[in-house]
Amino acid sequence: MQPIGRKRWSIAEGYIPSQSSFSDRALVSHETACILNAGDQDAHVSITLFFADREPVVYRVTVSARRTLHLRFNDLKDPETVPRDTDFSSVFESDVPIIVQHTRLDSRRAEVALMSTTAYADA
Amino acid sequence: MQPIGRKRWSIAEGYIPSQSSFSDRALVSHETACILNAGDQDAHVSITLFFADREPVVYRVTVSARRTLHLRFNDLKDPETVPRDTDFSSVFESDVPIIVQHTRLDSRRAEVALMSTTAYADA
Amino acid sequence: MQPIGRKRWSIAEGYIPSQSSFSDRALVSHETACILNAGDQDAHVSITLFFADREPVVYRVTVSARRTLHLRFNDLKDPETVPRDTDFSSVFESDVPIIVQHTRLDSRRAEVALMSTTAYADA
Amino acid sequence: MQPIGRKRWSIAEGYIPSQSSFSDRALVSHETACILNAGDQDAHVSITLFFADREPVVYRVTVSARRTLHLRFNDLKDPETVPRDTDFSSVFESDVPIIVQHTRLDSRRAEVALMSTTAYADA
Repeated sequence: MQPIGRKRWSIAEGYIPSQSSFSDRALVSHETACILNAGDQDAHVSITLFFADREPVVYRVTVSARRTLHLRFNDLKDPETVPRDTDFSSVFESDVPIIVQHTRLDSRRAEVALMSTTAYADA
Repeated sequence: MQPIGRKRWSIAEGYIPSQSSFSDRALVSHETACILNAGDQDAHVSITLFFADREPVVYRVTVSARRTLHLRFNDLKDPETVPRDTDFSSVFESDVPIIVQHTRLDSRRAEVALMSTTAYADA
Repeated sequence: MQPIGRKRWSIAEGYIPSQSSFSDRALVSHETACILNAGDQDAHVSITLFFADREPVVYRVTVSARRTLHLRFNDLKDPETVPRDTDFSSVFESDVPIIVQHTRLDSRRAEVALMSTTAYADA
Repeated sequence: MQPIGRKRWSIAEGYIPSQSSFSDRALVSHETACILNAGDQDAHVSITLFFADREPVVYRVTVSARRTLHLRFNDLKDPETVPRDTDFSSVFESDVPIIVQHTRLDSRRAEVALMSTTAYADA
């Protein structure tokens, strides 16, 4: 497949609710970046998290060639876990073109709420 | 109408819940790609589905001239059904300009949750 | 204000549920196109609705200079009302730059579901 | 980090419900613009709110270098509070590149509804 995507993306919204009405992994409140690498080379992606009142923190993930990674911010652990109930934003920088979409499943209440958007693709 | 749209699109999010609180087709959990072909020639669209841990699978659909197709990933059957409760992403490649929007209706719980976004339009 | 926006937009998703759990206008199921005209000249906008199995239908609205119009597809009446429980897509063509965002409030069930996305802005 | 973002953005949707099922700040109905300034200079942002039937109103906020601001329209007070149950749109103009995403949490009913989209980024 001909290359598709961009190398730099951003999700300005970010917030992981600490509460959930369910313990099942599928329905625990989570904030996700879905990352597609449709190309034939692995994508090395750095994810910089920005906060309201402290310096950014950088994470690194690899998305294999021709694979998708639905990455939960909840699961990031190195260099530190992402604080709950805290506003953040993120910037993705990849060495090959990728596509990024943002989703939150929110189960603070007994019913599930969802939101999603294609991330901002930088020129 | 003057041509409108792009030939290559991507939806990085993809997930069909296996559960639904309703059996009515309108309210069964579903993941949809709304495809508009506003032009005067039929659109031949290949849809490549990418997964977390196996090779991509290609589907083909036709969207008639001046028509919309709200395609449920749930309904794709050839060459195989789309697995439920499984992360995927998709890339759309058309021979004429189209517009693609992504929607999920999620009725795993007794109430309905919705999300939608214009897909990523490649340059 | 310096001109902002584009002249051609599209929302590939479109569906007005016939059912609502509420009779209050704010909470009746509705599908909306929010149209901002930030400029100093009135915007004359034609809206073409596309369907799955019949020819498109054209509507016309005016958005005054420096005003926003949150247009419910439910309220379109001329040349005909928009059928309920029916898939459609829309294309917006304006004589001056505008910005279009799509929203659905869905109250088929007792709780409210929402979705929204910036529409596709054609180059 | 290399500059990322745009200087002019718009959110065509805007509506703050006056009702909420909860008094807790996190779950009060709110309309938010998440603004990321990933650069090394403070961003001075003017936000122009447009209405259906009166002239626009301008607000000003600063987003510090390498910080995110999840700005609730509910909290804007100067020159005036944003009216509830009223349609509006917004345009963001910054002196340095920023990224803007729109979110509404709606708790008019006992359960929470969410929607989000990357704002329109002007060329």
